[in-house]
Amino acid sequence: MTETEWINYLRKFLFQREQVLATHNEDCAVIKYDDHYLLLTTDALVDKVHFRLEYTDYYSLGCKLASTNLSDIAAMGGEPRWALFSLGSPQPLEPSWLDPLMEGLVTTLENFGARLVGGDTVRSELLFLNLTLIGETDKPLLRKGAKPGDYIFVSKELGKSSAFLRYIKEFPMEEIPTPVIEAHLRPTPEIKLGKAIRYIANSAIDISDGLLLDLYRLCWASGVSAELDISCIPISPYATLEEALSGGEDYALLFTIPEERIEELYNISSNLNLNFYYIGKITKNNHKIFLIKDKGERVELSPQGFDHFISLPQP
Amino acid sequence: MTETEWINYLRKFLFQREQVLATHNEDCAVIKYDDHYLLLTTDALVDKVHFRLEYTDYYSLGCKLASTNLSDIAAMGGEPRWALFSLGSPQPLEPSWLDPLMEGLVTTLENFGARLVGGDTVRSELLFLNLTLIGETDKPLLRKGAKPGDYIFVSKELGKSSAFLRYIKEFPMEEIPTPVIEAHLRPTPEIKLGKAIRYIANSAIDISDGLLLDLYRLCWASGVSAELDISCIPISPYATLEEALSGGEDYALLFTIPEERIEELYNISSNLNLNFYYIGKITKNNHKIFLIKDKGERVELSPQGFDHFISLPQP
Repeated sequence: MTETEWINYLRKFLFQREQVLATHNEDCAVIKYDDHYLLLTTDALVDKVHFRLEYTDYYSLGCKLASTNLSDIAAMGGEPRWALFSLGSPQPLEPSWLDPLMEGLVTTLENFGARLVGGDTVRSELLFLNLTLIGETDKPLLRKGAKPGDYIFVSKELGKSSAFLRYIKEFPMEEIPTPVIEAHLRPTPEIKLGKAIRYIANSAIDISDGLLLDLYRLCWASGVSAELDISCIPISPYATLEEALSGGEDYALLFTIPEERIEELYNISSNLNLNFYYIGKITKNNHKIFLIKDKGERVELSPQGFDHFISLPQP
Repeated sequence: MTETEWINYLRKFLFQREQVLATHNEDCAVIKYDDHYLLLTTDALVDKVHFRLEYTDYYSLGCKLASTNLSDIAAMGGEPRWALFSLGSPQPLEPSWLDPLMEGLVTTLENFGARLVGGDTVRSELLFLNLTLIGETDKPLLRKGAKPGDYIFVSKELGKSSAFLRYIKEFPMEEIPTPVIEAHLRPTPEIKLGKAIRYIANSAIDISDGLLLDLYRLCWASGVSAELDISCIPISPYATLEEALSGGEDYALLFTIPEERIEELYNISSNLNLNFYYIGKITKNNHKIFLIKDKGERVELSPQGFDHFISLPQP
C-alpha cells in the first residue's frame, strides 16, 4: 500500500461518531470535550529512518521528537498540555545519553507549555522513540475548510531542513550553515502562530512532508484546488526550489485566510511579531495544484507527480 | 541502570505540579480535569522482546497491545476512552496481516468502551507497536494508599501467562491448553472490577511483572509491608508456584481493601459476578514482603530477590 492507500484503509478502523469530531486526514484527532476540544497526536522517530546518530546528537533528537508532535498541535490552533514518551533502546540506560535526550525533550515541551507526565521504556534491537501529545483548544483549526478565494500563506522559508540532508553528504558538520542545522535537527513548531490565527483562518496543516504534498492534502480535505505563485514561494537561500517544494520536515504552518480577514491577519502579525509569506490562492474544483510561473504560464501538477518535482526548471 | 534506577531517574523529568496528580510510580499519569481526572498511559510491544511471530498471530497481537494498556486504566478504576496507535513496520503494509492486527486491536478496545482515534505509521527495520490510551475517572485508584490491616486480593489465578512460555518450548501450539494460550496471547483486562472497587479499595496495581514485584511496588508507593499466605495464592493448575509468584503478564488486578469494607466488596462481587481471591494482609513498616508458609513459618523476601524465587520450595 502507498501512504495514501494506507490512510484510506485505516479509515474503517477509526472511530468517527459521538464526541469524535475528526480523526482521519487531520493532524490530530479532535475530541469534543465539554465546551472545548482535546487534540491527540502521536509521532514515532526510528533510527536510520528519521534520524542518524552519526549526525544527530541526543539533545537534538529529544527536541525533534517534541517538535514533530508540537507542530501537529500548532496546525490545529492548540495549546500543548501533556506528553507521554515511549523509548525502545538497544543500549543500556545510562545518563551519558539519556540526560541530553530527556533534556532536549522536556525543555522543548516546556518551552511551549507542555509537560511530560509518563511513558514506557522497553528493550529493542533498534532505537525508536514515540511521543504522544495532548493539547486543548476552544476552536480547532482543520485541514478541511479552505474556500475558493482564500489566500494561502506559509510561516517559514522552505527547504532548509531537507537541504541539510544534501549538505551532510558533502560537508563536515562544522561547515554546514547553522540555520540549516537548526532547521533539520531542532525545528521550531509554530504554536504561537497556530493559536493566533485559529479564529480567522479557514484551514491549516503543518508542512512535514513538503509544501506540495501537504498543500495537496489540505486541498483534498477541503474539496478545492490551489494556485501557487512560484515567484512568491519563500525559498530558503540555502535550499533549491525542489527542496522548498517537496523536501520534508520544514514544520512550517500552511494556512488559508479569506480575503475579508487579511487585514486582521496583518494586525495580529504586527502585534505578536509573527512571520509568514503569501504564496498563492485557493481555487474551485477538486484537488489540483497549479504553479504560476514568472511569465504567467500555468502548470498543472498531478498529485502523484510530487516525487518528480526534482526535474522542475528553476524559476 | 536497572528498571528501578531508571524509574527513579525519570522522576526529575516528570512534571508533578499543578493539575498533575501523579506521574511517577503509578500505572497511569493522573491529571485533574475540571471535576474529574484524565488517566494517560502508553505501552510498547517489540518483536522478539514482548512477542514472537512464530507463535503470536496478528489478531492476538492487536488484542494484547490493547489489553496491556487497558489493564493500566483498569488498575486506576478508569473508564477507557480514546487510543492512538503507532506502528513501526519492516513489512509492506498489506491487508493480509493488517486486517487481523487492526481487528484484534479495535475489537478489544471497543469491547471495553475505548475508541481508536488516530496514530502514526513509520518504516522500521524492526516491528514495534505502541498504544497510548486515555481514560477518565471520578476517583483514581492509586498504588499509593494501602494501609496496615488492609486485605490483599488478586483477581485471577496466577502464572498461566508465563506458563505459556514454558509450554511453547516443549509442545506444539495445538497441544497447549486453551486457557494457557488465552492468558498469554489474549489476556483480559479487569476494567469492570477496577471501576467497581474504586470507592472501597485503598490501593491497586495491575500485575504485569509478577505478583511479588508488583506487590512490592504497591508497598513501596504506600510505605507499607505485606504478608502473603502462601496457601491462599490462586496458583493456576497449569502453572508452577514460581510462575504464580514471579511470572509476568497476568494482567490481574492486585488491590487492598480495609476490613470495614470487605462486606461491600462481597456485595459488589455477587451483584456484578466478579471474581477475586484473598491472598494476605498489609502490615506496618516499609517495603517488606513476607510469605507465611503452611506451618506458620514466616519468610522475608528481599525486594532484590524476586528473581531468585525460582528456588522456593513448593508449599
